[in-house]
Amino acid sequence: MNFHSMSPDQLREIADDLTKQYERLQAAGLKLDLTRGKPAPEQLDLSNDMLSLPGDDYRDSTGVDCRNYGGLTGLADLRTIFGELLGVAPANLLSLGNSSLEIMHDLTVFGLLHGTAGSSTTWAAQGPIKFLCPSPGYDRHFAITEAYGIEMIPVPMLPDGPDTEVCAELLAADPSIKGMWAVPTYSNPTGVTFSEETTRRLLEMPAADDFRIYWDNAYAVHTLVDAAPTPLPVLEMAARAGHPDRVYVLGSTSKITFAGAGVSFLGASQANLDWFSKHLSVTTIGPDKLNQLRHVKFFGDADGVRAHMARHRDILVPKFRAVLDILEARLAESKVASWTDPEGGYFISLDVIDGAAARTIELAKNAGIALTAYGSTFPYKRDPHDRNIRLAPTFPQIDELKVAMDGVATCVLLASTEVLLESH
Amino acid sequence: MNFHSMSPDQLREIADDLTKQYERLQAAGLKLDLTRGKPAPEQLDLSNDMLSLPGDDYRDSTGVDCRNYGGLTGLADLRTIFGELLGVAPANLLSLGNSSLEIMHDLTVFGLLHGTAGSSTTWAAQGPIKFLCPSPGYDRHFAITEAYGIEMIPVPMLPDGPDTEVCAELLAADPSIKGMWAVPTYSNPTGVTFSEETTRRLLEMPAADDFRIYWDNAYAVHTLVDAAPTPLPVLEMAARAGHPDRVYVLGSTSKITFAGAGVSFLGASQANLDWFSKHLSVTTIGPDKLNQLRHVKFFGDADGVRAHMARHRDILVPKFRAVLDILEARLAESKVASWTDPEGGYFISLDVIDGAAARTIELAKNAGIALTAYGSTFPYKRDPHDRNIRLAPTFPQIDELKVAMDGVATCVLLASTEVLLESH
Repeated sequence: MNFHSMSPDQLREIADDLTKQYERLQAAGLKLDLTRGKPAPEQLDLSNDMLSLPGDDYRDSTGVDCRNYGGLTGLADLRTIFGELLGVAPANLLSLGNSSLEIMHDLTVFGLLHGTAGSSTTWAAQGPIKFLCPSPGYDRHFAITEAYGIEMIPVPMLPDGPDTEVCAELLAADPSIKGMWAVPTYSNPTGVTFSEETTRRLLEMPAADDFRIYWDNAYAVHTLVDAAPTPLPVLEMAARAGHPDRVYVLGSTSKITFAGAGVSFLGASQANLDWFSKHLSVTTIGPDKLNQLRHVKFFGDADGVRAHMARHRDILVPKFRAVLDILEARLAESKVASWTDPEGGYFISLDVIDGAAARTIELAKNAGIALTAYGSTFPYKRDPHDRNIRLAPTFPQIDELKVAMDGVATCVLLASTEVLLESH
Repeated sequence: MNFHSMSPDQLREIADDLTKQYERLQAAGLKLDLTRGKPAPEQLDLSNDMLSLPGDDYRDSTGVDCRNYGGLTGLADLRTIFGELLGVAPANLLSLGNSSLEIMHDLTVFGLLHGTAGSSTTWAAQGPIKFLCPSPGYDRHFAITEAYGIEMIPVPMLPDGPDTEVCAELLAADPSIKGMWAVPTYSNPTGVTFSEETTRRLLEMPAADDFRIYWDNAYAVHTLVDAAPTPLPVLEMAARAGHPDRVYVLGSTSKITFAGAGVSFLGASQANLDWFSKHLSVTTIGPDKLNQLRHVKFFGDADGVRAHMARHRDILVPKFRAVLDILEARLAESKVASWTDPEGGYFISLDVIDGAAARTIELAKNAGIALTAYGSTFPYKRDPHDRNIRLAPTFPQIDELKVAMDGVATCVLLASTEVLLESH
């Protein structure tokens, strides 16, 4: 029954029953974790053949000895494979180290201290600068901007991407907005994939010359349905829109092969790549080419990656299904929550009634179920409505996942009765 | 015969003969490279067993699944092995990514934008800052400070390390000196190993609270004699000297296993590690633990590393010997050059007569022999006496190396006659 149409007495009765359920939950002594988007061991097993690669043959297809120094761009073979998957010409793609987050960090630091490509003034010298932050979004993005004192402006997420009207208004009014976070495919945590129209608008809208969109295509191939969407040729679209240097495309194999032992990618215009490479060459002699060669040998080509992702999908779909089934069975009728049914990515985004998220997370914690920390999906960890909870179904075993989600549902319901009773 | 005691006519006669030698050298159409400290393929072969590691067993000795996210400090097993070799307690050592240069870059950027551990003011906010640069030194160190606009002050290198009297005077007079580059073992390019007394002085001398020594122990185990020196317990010495946070210890396996596919290390006080880890956690989720596990399995323990380095030594000693023999045979009598006879590291430092280095490098280039670019071993590429040339004997095959060095000797002699004739 819809909680919103209940009388206080009805709610109290429900709350009493839920409290008993919650006490049984606490008594069960669970220790479950739904916090982070980590692959499960069975997913990692899919790449175990890599553990003995590259084997005796340490040269790439052009004859480069990958055991020695040299080559700031990364292996051409790997750039060809992932260029196709990211919608970037291999010549515009660098393959780098084990962390795309680190690339985004360095892009930010270089902007602050060196200025962007073609700009004579550093971001730091332009006084306080700002980034647009489609929210809910990825906490580790927000952590970078927060660490460097860059003001974060939340922007609403719509079903086809960030609200471009809001973005356009903000950008037109404020040239100190220098960047924007974006996860264009199966966005973290909403699962939203940016439409071509939204993308085009983001690339066309007037903004400062040194405004950059961090196009973090972290889930480009991480589909839960038959096939991932064809990646938009965002660099070509940016050039056609008259802003060739606006976009930094990011990618990573951390959730394709081994998490933390993968390879990252940066796609950008030639001017941006020249700028980045110049500063990167001061930072490092070059990326780990042997790990890149390992990936080339393991995949062979882009279809090899697609086939590999289908095997991930087979493991993940039942987990996502289990979470969605429990949410539907336990929460649909009461109308105290809504949630996403993503076609890819690593998360389900759960919205509870306003004011109930922090309390839900607290109740879950006290019952031994770790949920992503309150507010994590918003800049400064400030959830304006106290309602969003990011669920990460990938890592736990499915039986544990069902137990945890059933517990979470109890916590959502109990927290909701508390909020509704207070407002009466 | 000593060129300095020759008459102009004698010099001209010698020069004519050298010019003929040089013409023959040019006619030979060489294409040889003595520029960079790269391991030779035979050295890389020593680690080929790593190409199939870690194999099926992806857990470290504590049971960590190295295929997944987690762990900013790096594997304990690896920190134990290299802690012993670097003279740092494993608890004070992080094992990180494939580039110690990147750590040094990040230490510098964090100092500029966040301030050092325990400091409330960033380096950037303190106006122009400076670094002490023992010279000749490592060009990639100087490139970091130059890129971020940090003024570099050359400090003379003595046989037992940097001139501490000069350092002490500069530091006492100028609190804007915030850092110092140092390669304490088999220094690049001089081969100098800092004495305990020099080290103690560097740690004791009064300086700004946020003054840091980048103790880049890149060649800690890279001996050309029976055994590498026992590493000084520099963090303990710094604590005893009352400056526990003064030193950042750096290390890397790039010239132990595979160049660019190794593991790097940062050793520091707990306060420094807390500070670094806090900022590093914004940059990356963690290092590539599988590559760390690969190293642990390959070496087993510190003695495994020492035995491995002895095999490197067996390959390198004949190359260094060949270079030294040619220098002695071709240049000793004329008194136009002096050179180091290092007990370890990757370089021989050649000093020609003042004013002859750039010309020697140019002559060599025009004969197809690439030498390290003029001035590279000094801040801002300014060799104050135009006399230092860094020779890197490791990469070429020994026959090529002999041909190249004989050519270099001809260029040194010819350039010397030109300089001496001009001064007559």
